[in-house]
Amino acid sequence: MLTNPGSDRVRSVRGLSRRPVRRRTGRILVEGPQGVREAVRFAPHDVVDLYVTAEAADRYADVVHDAREAGRFVHEVSEEVLAAMCDAEHPQGMAAVVGWQPAGLDDVLAAGPRTLVFLTNVRDPGNLGTVIRGADAAGADAVLVSGSSVDVTAPKVVRSTVGSLFHVPVVTGLDVPTTLARLRDAGVSTYAADGSGSASVDEVERTRPHAWVMGNEAWGLPDDLLAACDEVVRVPIYGHAESLNLAMAATLCLYASTRA
Amino acid sequence: MLTNPGSDRVRSVRGLSRRPVRRRTGRILVEGPQGVREAVRFAPHDVVDLYVTAEAADRYADVVHDAREAGRFVHEVSEEVLAAMCDAEHPQGMAAVVGWQPAGLDDVLAAGPRTLVFLTNVRDPGNLGTVIRGADAAGADAVLVSGSSVDVTAPKVVRSTVGSLFHVPVVTGLDVPTTLARLRDAGVSTYAADGSGSASVDEVERTRPHAWVMGNEAWGLPDDLLAACDEVVRVPIYGHAESLNLAMAATLCLYASTRA
Repeated sequence: MLTNPGSDRVRSVRGLSRRPVRRRTGRILVEGPQGVREAVRFAPHDVVDLYVTAEAADRYADVVHDAREAGRFVHEVSEEVLAAMCDAEHPQGMAAVVGWQPAGLDDVLAAGPRTLVFLTNVRDPGNLGTVIRGADAAGADAVLVSGSSVDVTAPKVVRSTVGSLFHVPVVTGLDVPTTLARLRDAGVSTYAADGSGSASVDEVERTRPHAWVMGNEAWGLPDDLLAACDEVVRVPIYGHAESLNLAMAATLCLYASTRA
Repeated sequence: MLTNPGSDRVRSVRGLSRRPVRRRTGRILVEGPQGVREAVRFAPHDVVDLYVTAEAADRYADVVHDAREAGRFVHEVSEEVLAAMCDAEHPQGMAAVVGWQPAGLDDVLAAGPRTLVFLTNVRDPGNLGTVIRGADAAGADAVLVSGSSVDVTAPKVVRSTVGSLFHVPVVTGLDVPTTLARLRDAGVSTYAADGSGSASVDEVERTRPHAWVMGNEAWGLPDDLLAACDEVVRVPIYGHAESLNLAMAATLCLYASTRA
């Protein structure tokens, strides 16, 4: 059992909370049993090390078993060591270092996607992670993320995806105008989700391939981007709320696509 | 301008971050210009004091103007004073002390509601606030909250509602079995939202009055509660995600009601 929170190994895992370290190593830290379970299930050969407390090894024996079956390194750690490794306040006894790479836009487009979501300027890690989770639930083909958005591999984003990062392809670092042009060339319609839209989500054509284009949480989409999209579509507001939050709006749009 | 972060007034406002103080005074703290704007618009006579920095008074001049028009006390404060008053890390220059009372279940039922949501055991403040915001956006008639849930007047809940707390009636402190019986007696069908449901959200009858019954974020609804509801309904998951988060599931259910 690893019990020294000051060890080199602990410092190296903790280092993954910093973006340059994630970028250099191509690894991320997945915190909590749900996320780790999905990594072990969907990307077993990318799981480098699994760290688990005695109590969590007992409670989530399936995860530990599957990781061992896949030949992964499972390390028992003290609560103190896990806390020192993690960014999360409550990692629930389990974390894993996992190799993760974004998908490529070429591959996503070559696969003939039906529904995509393109986040052009999302700044809140919880929002980004929740959109990825919602996109997974709605059966979207991929999540596209602009370079101006928060880093997808940040610990809070990874936690908020609750494992969906290993289910749905995520393309990162995209330039917005270039990507809109690429989508158009690939025959994917672009629907800007914005309160100013004349069509509502349920009215727009959703049987052809399309991407929901989402703006920033606070200030939405700029005019030039609205103009560059094929349609501007609003999520209807029936009460007095000024807006929905980004994750809710994206999830409603993506479920509307699935229903169509 | 108020500049002393150690003053009695600052301490008294800050005291509203504690539940017993909110309960005793019947007042809550609304942080941030969006929430304050909705309080001033929808409950102007309940706004006791508005605190604003010079910069925010300029940027959100409409809010300050409307508050003064309604005869409310507007106090200019230093950044330090506002920070000392607030629970939020970034109150964006504005906060208000507002009288707020939960709605009564009798009144909600007497009004002949069409769509309700009943949160039976929600523990995360952000989730609760986001459901209230989503219920407002979807045009739900009221939000019902069990006594076992997080306190609706907690600062983080209030912030997450972004003003919707002043738009939609919220009933608090409810006993779950009693409330289900009351709903039934009032002719309101109860739909438990749960992954085990055989009917999906889009399949269930949504033109008659109904309440979506939501469980805890992590462990969902207990069996006896599932059995006590008229139907168990699932939000369909099309990808590999294990579930949606509570706020997203509730919002999808409530929007499905509105569409029907």
